[in-house]
Amino acid sequence: MTAKLFSDSYFMEQALKEAQKAYLKDEVPVGAVIVFNNKIIARTHNLTEQLTDFTAHAEMQAFTSATEYLSNKYLNKCTLYVTLEPCVMCAGAIFWTRIGKVVYGASDDRRGFRRLDGNILHPSTKLTGGVLEDKCKALMKTFFKEKR
Amino acid sequence: MTAKLFSDSYFMEQALKEAQKAYLKDEVPVGAVIVFNNKIIARTHNLTEQLTDFTAHAEMQAFTSATEYLSNKYLNKCTLYVTLEPCVMCAGAIFWTRIGKVVYGASDDRRGFRRLDGNILHPSTKLTGGVLEDKCKALMKTFFKEKR
Repeated sequence: MTAKLFSDSYFMEQALKEAQKAYLKDEVPVGAVIVFNNKIIARTHNLTEQLTDFTAHAEMQAFTSATEYLSNKYLNKCTLYVTLEPCVMCAGAIFWTRIGKVVYGASDDRRGFRRLDGNILHPSTKLTGGVLEDKCKALMKTFFKEKR
Repeated sequence: MTAKLFSDSYFMEQALKEAQKAYLKDEVPVGAVIVFNNKIIARTHNLTEQLTDFTAHAEMQAFTSATEYLSNKYLNKCTLYVTLEPCVMCAGAIFWTRIGKVVYGASDDRRGFRRLDGNILHPSTKLTGGVLEDKCKALMKTFFKEKR
């Protein structure tokens, strides 16, 4: 079934397209989009290896891109779609942006921010996980299988 | 007393100089330097307001700068000096870089990463706080007093 326009699945499909771009560059395949008023205002994918820089996670680039677009360092009316549960760094950035909603695909039990006690996200930020989880997981699995 | 060359106090003085630059730009006055083989390879200060971007914390810029300089995304032989205890985002980035040592000046009970349970930093990263604490605190206090 095709993801319906403006549904969480639709936007996660767009984030997955970004993750595919990362995969083709031999990067850990994580992609993100930021949506404002049903419009995608940032499309990014992990570039850690290419930029030799851990701060180049998909989410971090998406925040820089979206805040630039909106000329506003707060993203409270936006939603972040990301194919993998954010790490602690990205969750810390999510806190600062006060983004309205975070939707992730696959969970990350090892490096995801949810493994830590305490509320990292801003209290006003909504969180949803597991959207297109199987597709998001499958891409990661394929990547790491090839690396072994 | 003047801080001795190559001491923690000496490098924190350099980070304080960066924090002063932020202060003069009406930014929350946080500065950072990264040291490799007793040489400063990155000097940065908070630019959140100027860049309208929360990911522009002093530490984050310092990581980008230092990894670029070393052409290595790991900073295990480096020390980060920062005038304020890092936030959760920056601590998450510190984890990824596996930086050898983190030295901070003033503690940050409200936004500092130490308020969270669980080890955010990499197990191989050493942590020291309170270096030139009074000077680092005084600059922050002056800044926020003027904002009121």
